[in-house]
Amino acid sequence: MFVSECLSANENGHLMIGGCDTVELAKQFGTPLYVMDESDIIKNCKLYQESLNRYYDGNGLVLYASKAFSCMYMCKLMNDLGMGLDVVSGGELYTAWKAGFDMSRVYFHGNNKTDDELKLAVEHKVGTIVVDNVDELERLNRIASEKDVVVRIMFRIKPGIDAHTHSFIQTGQIDSKFGVALENGEAIEAYRRAVEYSHLKVMGVHCHIGSQIFDLEPFKLAAKVMMNFIGDLHDKLNIEIEELNLGGGYGIKYTEEDQPINYDAYIQAVSEVVKQMAQERGVNLPKIMMEPGRSIVAPAGITLYTVGGVKEIKDVRTYVSVDGGMIDNPRYILYESKYDAVLANKATAPRENVVTIAGKCCESGDLLIKDIKMPHIEVGDTLAVLATGAYNYSMASHYNRIPNPPVIMVKDGQAKEIVRRESYEDLLRNDIL
Amino acid sequence: MFVSECLSANENGHLMIGGCDTVELAKQFGTPLYVMDESDIIKNCKLYQESLNRYYDGNGLVLYASKAFSCMYMCKLMNDLGMGLDVVSGGELYTAWKAGFDMSRVYFHGNNKTDDELKLAVEHKVGTIVVDNVDELERLNRIASEKDVVVRIMFRIKPGIDAHTHSFIQTGQIDSKFGVALENGEAIEAYRRAVEYSHLKVMGVHCHIGSQIFDLEPFKLAAKVMMNFIGDLHDKLNIEIEELNLGGGYGIKYTEEDQPINYDAYIQAVSEVVKQMAQERGVNLPKIMMEPGRSIVAPAGITLYTVGGVKEIKDVRTYVSVDGGMIDNPRYILYESKYDAVLANKATAPRENVVTIAGKCCESGDLLIKDIKMPHIEVGDTLAVLATGAYNYSMASHYNRIPNPPVIMVKDGQAKEIVRRESYEDLLRNDIL
Repeated sequence: MFVSECLSANENGHLMIGGCDTVELAKQFGTPLYVMDESDIIKNCKLYQESLNRYYDGNGLVLYASKAFSCMYMCKLMNDLGMGLDVVSGGELYTAWKAGFDMSRVYFHGNNKTDDELKLAVEHKVGTIVVDNVDELERLNRIASEKDVVVRIMFRIKPGIDAHTHSFIQTGQIDSKFGVALENGEAIEAYRRAVEYSHLKVMGVHCHIGSQIFDLEPFKLAAKVMMNFIGDLHDKLNIEIEELNLGGGYGIKYTEEDQPINYDAYIQAVSEVVKQMAQERGVNLPKIMMEPGRSIVAPAGITLYTVGGVKEIKDVRTYVSVDGGMIDNPRYILYESKYDAVLANKATAPRENVVTIAGKCCESGDLLIKDIKMPHIEVGDTLAVLATGAYNYSMASHYNRIPNPPVIMVKDGQAKEIVRRESYEDLLRNDIL
Repeated sequence: MFVSECLSANENGHLMIGGCDTVELAKQFGTPLYVMDESDIIKNCKLYQESLNRYYDGNGLVLYASKAFSCMYMCKLMNDLGMGLDVVSGGELYTAWKAGFDMSRVYFHGNNKTDDELKLAVEHKVGTIVVDNVDELERLNRIASEKDVVVRIMFRIKPGIDAHTHSFIQTGQIDSKFGVALENGEAIEAYRRAVEYSHLKVMGVHCHIGSQIFDLEPFKLAAKVMMNFIGDLHDKLNIEIEELNLGGGYGIKYTEEDQPINYDAYIQAVSEVVKQMAQERGVNLPKIMMEPGRSIVAPAGITLYTVGGVKEIKDVRTYVSVDGGMIDNPRYILYESKYDAVLANKATAPRENVVTIAGKCCESGDLLIKDIKMPHIEVGDTLAVLATGAYNYSMASHYNRIPNPPVIMVKDGQAKEIVRRESYEDLLRNDIL
């Protein structure tokens, strides 16, 4: 009935998540309110882990891409589940460390890691640094040498496959700020240099081909291309690669139009390609790393708003204004992303009218959903935007000096605040008069 | 030589702002760093105020639109200059109040003010509430009545002019989440209701026709349309309007391609229209309010970055990666906005190569400037992006959990920190494990 599996309606017609009545949650914690279903997050993680066990003897690690949604509680949850962690900044790294994450299972990404960030990573014994370029390689070796440690690394490779949209292309992706390219020899040259550094240990290769991908083929092709590169490293440079990190990008269901791939099928297909290619190229089977983020948390999250105004402009459009907007969910204004919504206090009411859900920001483009069929909406209704668990809290801004909403984790009918609501005082904390 | 007047180069070829060497500022405060020239901000305010004196006998008030850049120091500066203030949220209102702003000169906007925000406004004696719709009117009257005060109001009117781009159109703007429309009678009906409320006092009319406008005509047309509406209110409802708030939207020079209107010419032209129309319609001359935001602060600001990587992809593109990006300046990823940049430590070097300035976020679209001709750039160089004083700090996010840069105000060779750099601990302040 709802686009995310973790949602249902109770006998009062109220939207339910994690055994909690969303109308009650809105009353208790106020709106706007991010709500996330812990059981659904756990289920999504286990789905990846069990598939890796089933099709690849568990020879690898599932890394949660924390840029999708990072906070201390989330890092602790991932740690307890035995997940690895993909961090892309000093801030994400620090959050993981403060939450007690096993740092040996952390992979540190980024196209422009600063010296301070690299030092922080080395000091906190981050498991693996995914090096972007040879300049970073040199800086990292210097820092590791100063601390007298050996750091595990892999390079981010541009495999020449771009699957950022529903289709995918095999060329052009060389035009990216990320990583070293295969096709112009940059990648193999980077590895040739890497093995010469005394304080770096080459462990693997990494690629990431896009986001919100709905097709198996680009993933299979990426696995093939990367295994060929592992073969080349073996044959030409005598480097034995132990880890193949295939990044993330698995599409999720934002609206009924989206038909995501079965993650199980993905892991089965990729495992087969890797095994076949290992044999073909005469290399050892690498550990497989994958980096799901969106598909772990997006379906598990909703955002609750209170309707503050309904503006019916005859023969033009009906605007429903809510008490949040681009500050807590900038994905419409950034990408015109599509979302589904449910009237939380009338979750089973028939959808009758097409409306546009607008935010409260002083910006024309501040919409959440353009033209969605909804039941009759009144001021004071609780509106839930669905599948907001990824790239909403993590991309939130303070535009218009609107404080960020809290994040509530629900499970078995219990609600726990994991990020407090910001106060106006919080916004002024760093102001100096 | 530079796109903003407040910039120059010193004898070492370093970029100067407010009498300070930007290379030294970057060393002293670190990067990324927002730097703003206080004298330039003051000059821009006075330009509006003096024009209003010259062409309209000072009969009005210039309101700084604080959504462009709000912090306590900025509010205090505006207060000291005798400016009014346009706020669009409880957060901006609270910031002004904490900074000691004269609240009688504050105008509170927003398409969906919550009850809490309206209460805050009434409690802090905000001068005028710019009411969005009749539902808000009713809520505001109830709140004012509970506190036993009379609140000054005006409505936001959709004048049927849309000048959001370089050209402008005279229809269609009715399709907006903001305000009440003229063309379908909504606006006059709103005023008919407003005068019936005991705790509200109708003071004026407000409109806002767009942003970054480079043409006088739409402003003149808006003034004419609004004066006709004031005439209608007088003739049909016997309402005497005292204040005409014409909003903002004055374009600024981001790059050499932009040719902003002379603000002086704008005020002259609009004053003439208003005087002529007042005579024509037989109404009193209203006070004129205007709401510049961008044009006050954008040219006065720059952002300093350190170059962390130069990735030359032969026959494709050269990416220059800096230590900030869409987190501190989301305007490229939001609108593909164009900016100019200067190599702060080689400000007078000839521009030889076309490069793309990329941020450090884990997002392909995280660019600051695509294809800009720059001098030869090396790792460690200090790069200044120009005219970033508006909608950069105010739209900043914590995406990738990257802390926000500090804001430094410079004047007469002195630098004062007005917003501190965020720490990693700041990011975790509201986390609950």
